[in-house]
Amino acid sequence: MNSSIDEVSSSLLDKINSPSDLRKLEIEQLPELCAEIREFLISHLSVNPGHFASSMGAVDIIVALHYVFDTPADRLVWDVGHQAYAHKILTGRRDAFSTQRTFGGISGFPTPLESPYDTFIAGHAGNSISAALGMAIADMTTPGHEERKTVAVIGDASISGGLAFEGLNNASNHPNNLLIILNDNDMSIDDNVGALHSYLSDLTTSAGYNRLRDKMAGYFRRKGLLTESRKRAIIRFNNSVKSLISRKQNIFEGLNIRYFGPFDGHDVIKLVKVLRDIKDMKGPRLLHLCTVKGKGYKKAEEDPTVWHAPGKFDPETGERFCGGNDGNPPLWQEVFGETLLELARKDSRVVGITAAMPTGTSLSRLMAEMPDRAYDVGISEGHAVTFAGGLAAAGKKPFVAIYSSFLQRAYDNIIHDVAIQGLPVTFCIDRAGIVGEDGVTHHGMFDTAYLRCIPGMTVAEPADEETMRNIMYTSLSLPTPLAIRYPRGRATTPDWRSDMHDIPVGKGRSIRLRDGARTAILSLGPILKTALEAAKALEEEGIQVDVYDMIWLKPLDDGILRQVTEKYDNIVTLEDSTLAGGFGSAVNDWIRENSGKVNLTSLGVKDEWISHGSVDRLRELCGIDTVSVVKTIESLEKANANTL
Amino acid sequence: MNSSIDEVSSSLLDKINSPSDLRKLEIEQLPELCAEIREFLISHLSVNPGHFASSMGAVDIIVALHYVFDTPADRLVWDVGHQAYAHKILTGRRDAFSTQRTFGGISGFPTPLESPYDTFIAGHAGNSISAALGMAIADMTTPGHEERKTVAVIGDASISGGLAFEGLNNASNHPNNLLIILNDNDMSIDDNVGALHSYLSDLTTSAGYNRLRDKMAGYFRRKGLLTESRKRAIIRFNNSVKSLISRKQNIFEGLNIRYFGPFDGHDVIKLVKVLRDIKDMKGPRLLHLCTVKGKGYKKAEEDPTVWHAPGKFDPETGERFCGGNDGNPPLWQEVFGETLLELARKDSRVVGITAAMPTGTSLSRLMAEMPDRAYDVGISEGHAVTFAGGLAAAGKKPFVAIYSSFLQRAYDNIIHDVAIQGLPVTFCIDRAGIVGEDGVTHHGMFDTAYLRCIPGMTVAEPADEETMRNIMYTSLSLPTPLAIRYPRGRATTPDWRSDMHDIPVGKGRSIRLRDGARTAILSLGPILKTALEAAKALEEEGIQVDVYDMIWLKPLDDGILRQVTEKYDNIVTLEDSTLAGGFGSAVNDWIRENSGKVNLTSLGVKDEWISHGSVDRLRELCGIDTVSVVKTIESLEKANANTL
Repeated sequence: MNSSIDEVSSSLLDKINSPSDLRKLEIEQLPELCAEIREFLISHLSVNPGHFASSMGAVDIIVALHYVFDTPADRLVWDVGHQAYAHKILTGRRDAFSTQRTFGGISGFPTPLESPYDTFIAGHAGNSISAALGMAIADMTTPGHEERKTVAVIGDASISGGLAFEGLNNASNHPNNLLIILNDNDMSIDDNVGALHSYLSDLTTSAGYNRLRDKMAGYFRRKGLLTESRKRAIIRFNNSVKSLISRKQNIFEGLNIRYFGPFDGHDVIKLVKVLRDIKDMKGPRLLHLCTVKGKGYKKAEEDPTVWHAPGKFDPETGERFCGGNDGNPPLWQEVFGETLLELARKDSRVVGITAAMPTGTSLSRLMAEMPDRAYDVGISEGHAVTFAGGLAAAGKKPFVAIYSSFLQRAYDNIIHDVAIQGLPVTFCIDRAGIVGEDGVTHHGMFDTAYLRCIPGMTVAEPADEETMRNIMYTSLSLPTPLAIRYPRGRATTPDWRSDMHDIPVGKGRSIRLRDGARTAILSLGPILKTALEAAKALEEEGIQVDVYDMIWLKPLDDGILRQVTEKYDNIVTLEDSTLAGGFGSAVNDWIRENSGKVNLTSLGVKDEWISHGSVDRLRELCGIDTVSVVKTIESLEKANANTL
Repeated sequence: MNSSIDEVSSSLLDKINSPSDLRKLEIEQLPELCAEIREFLISHLSVNPGHFASSMGAVDIIVALHYVFDTPADRLVWDVGHQAYAHKILTGRRDAFSTQRTFGGISGFPTPLESPYDTFIAGHAGNSISAALGMAIADMTTPGHEERKTVAVIGDASISGGLAFEGLNNASNHPNNLLIILNDNDMSIDDNVGALHSYLSDLTTSAGYNRLRDKMAGYFRRKGLLTESRKRAIIRFNNSVKSLISRKQNIFEGLNIRYFGPFDGHDVIKLVKVLRDIKDMKGPRLLHLCTVKGKGYKKAEEDPTVWHAPGKFDPETGERFCGGNDGNPPLWQEVFGETLLELARKDSRVVGITAAMPTGTSLSRLMAEMPDRAYDVGISEGHAVTFAGGLAAAGKKPFVAIYSSFLQRAYDNIIHDVAIQGLPVTFCIDRAGIVGEDGVTHHGMFDTAYLRCIPGMTVAEPADEETMRNIMYTSLSLPTPLAIRYPRGRATTPDWRSDMHDIPVGKGRSIRLRDGARTAILSLGPILKTALEAAKALEEEGIQVDVYDMIWLKPLDDGILRQVTEKYDNIVTLEDSTLAGGFGSAVNDWIRENSGKVNLTSLGVKDEWISHGSVDRLRELCGIDTVSVVKTIESLEKANANTL
């Protein structure tokens, strides 16, 4: 912790330990409270990094919601909950805020395991409407719960995803009083894309509408006629006026959801008034609020992409302490992004696809140089994959870069729209394995298991940049789908721009062979480093261990497996993924099918949810760190010695 | 084959062996051709059952498309391709049509493996826009392909799914000339649901608009002023007129897609003219066509749900030869549907959810008796599961019934919106395992593998009705998610309405124990029948085999596994699912973790795509029929004898 955190004066915020304290404030005090929360966020997030810009933008909405609604009896359902830091601060987690995203500390996302104010998990975008609709309908049919309110808060990027649309499309099917807050900050993590986005902008900038609305309200106010019922009438009237003026009928009204707005999402007093007006109305409603990402911190307002998750920074100057790449190995993402650009220059068939993560995946590099060959489809992972299938069917060579845990959303698309047809799509599975601070919703644990069962799918995990580049290069001549998984964080070699060449699919390599070794580690992916460190440590104890880098999860290297199951007493598989159906399981199945006789031990992520914290700490917890590998092999060798 | 097939006179159709033959016809002959195709469909499908009503409804659209577009250079992309029978008939598969859906015959869905006219697979709803968009964009950037046209045909039920929305939302992001045909028959397999559906109905029935449009066209026609450019101007003008009159701005235009329609989808001559008008226009366009499901066969028009896939029938009388349940065991779906209704009567928390399959899953029974506790969310599997998560979070006990292969679409929702939070949602996974005639896109192969890796998930597969009912009953008191998989087709016991009681989670049972048995079969699910038949056949050869019904894939029954790995020389696992990560793999992992020493053989679906045909024929192919089990165990026993 840094002394700057304590310097902030928070005369209002200091007294708020729960939303009921907040509700004791006068409405006029709310702007001051919002300012204090923003100071709090700046002072804390500059020291303990997190999601900055979206959290700053949502402060006023969060204050207004807790002020007007009777939380936690009334339910707030967040969407991509890293916008909801102010919600955490106001709901009894102000003091714990500095532990956020650290091991044992509070989560970076809302989670019901942490607080009754967190009604639903909110790590993957677009689920809030569906989940809140379930709650709202449940309450309508549960005696004594009929008066509970449910509010879903969703961003303009999330609402463009298929899940949110399915929720909207179903919102009016069964009686409910769901209120949807559209927090429209006019951008996703990167620039927002899609037609819905331009549509929302058009609505927002309908100047004629805004002028007329203000005139009407002013007229009634001056005449002292702004009664409760008239306010509602004005809101309703406004919608018709807006439709007429903007000549755009409202998509939400087309889906039988009453639409209110757009309003300024930073005018907290007005927000409170509007929320009070529409709070008790019946039926599904959508309130459209316009906000500015990074609001209240100039540098973040000016460049919200950089300030999405800026890392540590100096609150005064806005200088970011992110360090350069000088002398460090590159991020895996950089290796992907630059290699794809190189391949695209060589081969005109190559195109790249991202689902709202051009910067996160580094597809931005292709996008900058060849904008017509890079597609950002927004938060639409399913479409991304099926679209890639269409591109491949028409002769292109698509590389689809999606984070492992988000690719779960495109599972059927991988099976039905790519693999059954054997289309040559290359899946670049970013953030595979343990991701660290983002925690349980973001670990990329399952892709090994959910891809291995798909016929005709090839799955690889390189241990280093050179292999990564060669696999990407090799995929150019593969006529079938290929998945390459690679983790968050840095690779291994500062000087990594090797020449690329084809490598054989399904062929691993021996990395370390020693006379007298009775145990071999079969490693998949960058965790090879851990295997080698363990082997070295064991050597110092006099235990020789051989190490193989398998590279390919599917197909497995028959040659190596045949050799190692004959040569060694013990095989240890090591992977950064689930044991249930993953690499260890695949090797075990190979041994059964080939009647191999060997003592197999599999190290990987056990059948439990992994929390947040540093990658190193979490790997220790999972028993896939160097010390754990050493201990495992020590006890195997001891058992061997005992049986001699 | 039935003689009635040959009696049909098809003087036009008989000469059409490819769309180029079709394009030689005069436009005035097309209605006659459509009638002949309908006769062909009636005579064939009454004998070799298939998807009837939707195919009858799409005939005119298909004829018009192949007449106007230069297929296969121009690409037609189907969505839920069982509407596209006429397409198969016109593209060289007329003679093969009677082999449809049989083993070795043509597929019931379009598939590129079968014909160059089938540009993309079309088994799961809603993928056509995304796939066709990929093709259309690819062509724009491929030298020499710029003039190829791509047409996506999508139904009004499919377009309400999230994937289709993601496709629409991305349609205008990059230059392309995609034409989307909305085949609006105003119903899904069951009644259509959702706000988009009512929206489309409103558009369609905007009588004022239709009158004005006809007047305008009539005026220009009478004046001899209907030039090519004027026709286009009218179409454009029509859209504005329609917006003004219907007071509904067009959702598609809101998404930057030009909208044309609605037109009568059965007026083939007009369809040809409209398609010619808009064929060469630039940019993404949507043509809204209204059709009648079952068109041309009165009984099917009257009751399209029954006639969706009616089975065999008498073409003259419309009598369906479906047989009753008399004396037969029930369908697994009936067991589910009636048991759920019983549970709902007992427990007010129970609610049911289906994604557009109330009849297919038998959720219709709950829906009929308790309409406010059964939710049909349309073709929106992702929403179905997240919505269930919301219901569970608010105290309900949701049962979500979705076919195994369609549940792949809700994979992330299962993980993120249910399992991470440990919400007590019961997944009723219908059509698990080999489904038969619907083929590769519909087999429920992967659920065992993709669910087993999810922490905290319980997975069961009952072998009989009584166990199915008891598992459903037990789920009422489970605080965590449970998945129950069961197959298409009939269960085992005609008299199946047993009293229900709790059963212990993770406890299997021994079914058949014999003195001297050295081999045990561990069976999961209804394939137990095969295990018992094999054991009986082997007994007749003098080989004794014990049989266990494991019931639970996760958690596995430790007690049984500990016992059998000690007691027998050979364990054979038997399952109707993928071997890669499924039940056999789970048992193999258990043996590794528990240092079991036993010879394990796993029988299940190998790592390859399974085609269409009867379930029995496909099980033979996969080596999970009685004969294959017998042979496997014979050779195991022989090997044992040799080592003695």
